[in-house]
Amino acid sequence: MYRAGSKLAAPALRAARAPATSATTRRFLASKTQPQQATAAAVASNASFSVPPPDAASSRFFPNEVEQPIIKTQIPGPNSAAAIKDLDRVFDTRNLSMIANYEQSHGNYIADLDGNVLLDVYAQIASIPVGYNNPSLLQAATSPEMISGIVNRPALGVFPQHDWARILEQGILRACPKGQTQVFTSTTGSDANELAYKAAFMWRKQQERGGYNVDFTKEEMESTMNNMAPGSPNLSIMSFKYGFHGRLFGSLSTTRSKAIHKLDIPAFNWPQAPFPMLKYPLAEHAEENAKEEARCLAEAEHIMTTWSDPVAAIIIEPVQSEGGDNHASPDYFRKLREITKKHNILMIVDEVQTGVGATGKFWAHEHWDLPTPPDMVTFSKKAQMAGYFYGNEELRPNKAYRQFNTWMGDPSRAVLFGAIFDEIKRLDLVENTRITGDYLFSGLESLQQKFPEEIKNLRGKGQGTFIAFDSPRRDDVLKRAKSIGVNIGGSGVSAVRLRPMLVFQKRHADQLLERLEKVFASK
Amino acid sequence: MYRAGSKLAAPALRAARAPATSATTRRFLASKTQPQQATAAAVASNASFSVPPPDAASSRFFPNEVEQPIIKTQIPGPNSAAAIKDLDRVFDTRNLSMIANYEQSHGNYIADLDGNVLLDVYAQIASIPVGYNNPSLLQAATSPEMISGIVNRPALGVFPQHDWARILEQGILRACPKGQTQVFTSTTGSDANELAYKAAFMWRKQQERGGYNVDFTKEEMESTMNNMAPGSPNLSIMSFKYGFHGRLFGSLSTTRSKAIHKLDIPAFNWPQAPFPMLKYPLAEHAEENAKEEARCLAEAEHIMTTWSDPVAAIIIEPVQSEGGDNHASPDYFRKLREITKKHNILMIVDEVQTGVGATGKFWAHEHWDLPTPPDMVTFSKKAQMAGYFYGNEELRPNKAYRQFNTWMGDPSRAVLFGAIFDEIKRLDLVENTRITGDYLFSGLESLQQKFPEEIKNLRGKGQGTFIAFDSPRRDDVLKRAKSIGVNIGGSGVSAVRLRPMLVFQKRHADQLLERLEKVFASK
Repeated sequence: MYRAGSKLAAPALRAARAPATSATTRRFLASKTQPQQATAAAVASNASFSVPPPDAASSRFFPNEVEQPIIKTQIPGPNSAAAIKDLDRVFDTRNLSMIANYEQSHGNYIADLDGNVLLDVYAQIASIPVGYNNPSLLQAATSPEMISGIVNRPALGVFPQHDWARILEQGILRACPKGQTQVFTSTTGSDANELAYKAAFMWRKQQERGGYNVDFTKEEMESTMNNMAPGSPNLSIMSFKYGFHGRLFGSLSTTRSKAIHKLDIPAFNWPQAPFPMLKYPLAEHAEENAKEEARCLAEAEHIMTTWSDPVAAIIIEPVQSEGGDNHASPDYFRKLREITKKHNILMIVDEVQTGVGATGKFWAHEHWDLPTPPDMVTFSKKAQMAGYFYGNEELRPNKAYRQFNTWMGDPSRAVLFGAIFDEIKRLDLVENTRITGDYLFSGLESLQQKFPEEIKNLRGKGQGTFIAFDSPRRDDVLKRAKSIGVNIGGSGVSAVRLRPMLVFQKRHADQLLERLEKVFASK
Repeated sequence: MYRAGSKLAAPALRAARAPATSATTRRFLASKTQPQQATAAAVASNASFSVPPPDAASSRFFPNEVEQPIIKTQIPGPNSAAAIKDLDRVFDTRNLSMIANYEQSHGNYIADLDGNVLLDVYAQIASIPVGYNNPSLLQAATSPEMISGIVNRPALGVFPQHDWARILEQGILRACPKGQTQVFTSTTGSDANELAYKAAFMWRKQQERGGYNVDFTKEEMESTMNNMAPGSPNLSIMSFKYGFHGRLFGSLSTTRSKAIHKLDIPAFNWPQAPFPMLKYPLAEHAEENAKEEARCLAEAEHIMTTWSDPVAAIIIEPVQSEGGDNHASPDYFRKLREITKKHNILMIVDEVQTGVGATGKFWAHEHWDLPTPPDMVTFSKKAQMAGYFYGNEELRPNKAYRQFNTWMGDPSRAVLFGAIFDEIKRLDLVENTRITGDYLFSGLESLQQKFPEEIKNLRGKGQGTFIAFDSPRRDDVLKRAKSIGVNIGGSGVSAVRLRPMLVFQKRHADQLLERLEKVFASK
């Protein structure tokens, strides 16, 4: 079957070479006992502690991880069952997969209330970046900037804090994709996408109006108060079949994943284009796949140039995630970019799930080598903050208060992103994910040879740990995997979706592969 | 002019009678120095400190507040000007009012970078509940629940934490308005409203379909994937002229405040009804005002029963805030409620700005004595978390994953709300706001007698500190007030909008009144 490589992966080696600092690095600093001013800094000075270095002996990124999953009861066990029943009185638990004890969860492992500890390759919904109770993040969580952001949450657009520029520059702006220079911060993936749509519509109307300084007409000012054109124009965002971009009213109009996400909710008359459905293994279907991509591109161009409500922008995921882990080639995306450029339509890349390292690049669209950068890139989830990047100054609206809301994001989450980014750099986690992903993919290829009926359309090669395959008995596979210690998510109709954290290492991949093998053998 | 009352207001008295605990209450607890597991609890155990009691000598709610505003430079001063210039490189500063130093801001006072300290009766955008650097909130900010919520942010719908029921029950559910029993948590006011709209549309279609267990048709399932009816139905939410409900696509379609908020953004074909424009003082215009309200109710009923896209719900603010501080009588709201009941249309009360104590009731709609409770109540801002309350079980969608998103709110903000609620109870801050509001209103009435041309349409009597008046030179008044130490916001075209925090006391009201008098005298 799959063979565990005999060498340590590069980041693990680097971790092993990290200087062994004193034993006191894990000790909390003694706090002052004098009366103090009640401020964030004073509180924080009592809470700081040092981050331990990677453990040289075990090549671990941080301590406290269990050796492997621990299964003590059925899941849910008795304590969890009681807690779920209790929670259901006040909170809808029908979507619940597991009730967790995060105090007992470390690194790649999620604990429940019955002593079960699962290897977590779902990572909430692909949203935990660097492990549960990551020490660097615990440190950031008790920093003065964090505490002040929580207690004194500013309306960033009107009363920003003195260090907001620094928080952005030492945080999210260090992660700016190539070609982007500015960020507009928000709170979730859904609103990040919607704010990008708003920027696109304002830009489009500005083009039509004849420039940045041309004022609104009286007719526009009046009609918009009645939700009518021309002030509230009949423009559209084009998305792709199976795409997922959120569940608020604008974002839901671009979401095409499943009916249950959309039913009974009014939607805009916005178009969708087909997304290529590739055949696997890619090497064996090169010609058909190229034809499929060409067909989809032609159809996309047709729709975006003929739709009744003119298309201001398209939005696309580098890998369609919720919709079933659908990939397309870099060539497809390059050509799509050229089509948008040709028709002066903006291209928004939705990196809410693909971004922040999981594909072996910091941003998944870096895999494409685009001729010109996307107009906007949206993010959330693993970033733990949300927003959109842009590079073109014309996408800053021409007047104040056009792109605006009360909080405009959250400085405490922006501080957290800074710590996440530092941690990614400190442990070289994008490279780790690339290497571990290749290792995992090879292991899955071996498993596929042994169980060709269980693993279909294995995909995500060279995409870090952003790997998926179709399973004819998907829900059963996920359930059995959980019962022997691995938490895995699904996507689309039949996909097993792997979304480990960036601290997922070779030994975790081995544990996953061993358990998948058990599941497949236990039909 | 206005006369400072000679007696302490009731809550201040209560504070003065609070037992004087030992001098050590302001000291931080010594922390352990042994190596510890890196977990939220371990970090938190080093960060906790006691909350000081209200200061008996000065009847202050908490220490560290300055005696009065401090003005050292023009605003912005040289340090602020440099910081604004620096920030503008990476963040749109055109909406900026003041760059703040929150480390130096305490209680009701906001500090800048030039040593200026302003009495803050804007409180960000009416969103700071219990003062800057409130010691109780600082304590909550370093609790294990908070730190875990930040570092291990769960997807609450799928992997909720073991104490989520307890956080809800000890937090937001204690604040449930009468008639509401459940809460759906979210992140901002905009998405809270949109989630309520979604619940309303699902409920409406369920009614049409014939009940909770009737399944979707094939036609619905297919049409919704193309954003078409019947799956994506042409239903609507009715809002009111000048109302503000947010700026995402669904919420913006109900927002009717100003054209600049709406221009160039596609909108749904949703209707607006007129909102009563009352004349002040109310006592002198009782008959006209009753007629105006009757006219508006008739028009609202006409629109909600005849609009082309059937109205599933109406949404209304207890006091239209962004739109200019427009009030209506309790009788108007009671009749409006009756009309919605009569036509089986849901009533959503948007308490994003009015909620959490500022009107002298915890929820502003408690002033109305409604015959039946609202179907949903939305909240955000001072709650520092967001969501909607509901009481009718039928508003829980009939299947899983219909009302759902990745994070479903934020446990760290829910923990903070618990601390805010405790603080409100501990210091009886709703009652404080009622009493201080009455005191402030009287002072403004006196000022109005002296400066009848400066204070027009004084409104908000009996509504706590939720007070406003129109000013013929509004922007100039706000600017001058800032220059002598008071930060005030505007709303609508000409309203001076007062939105002090709940810890605003009589002496702060005096400082505000004194400075307003100076402004009016300095034309």
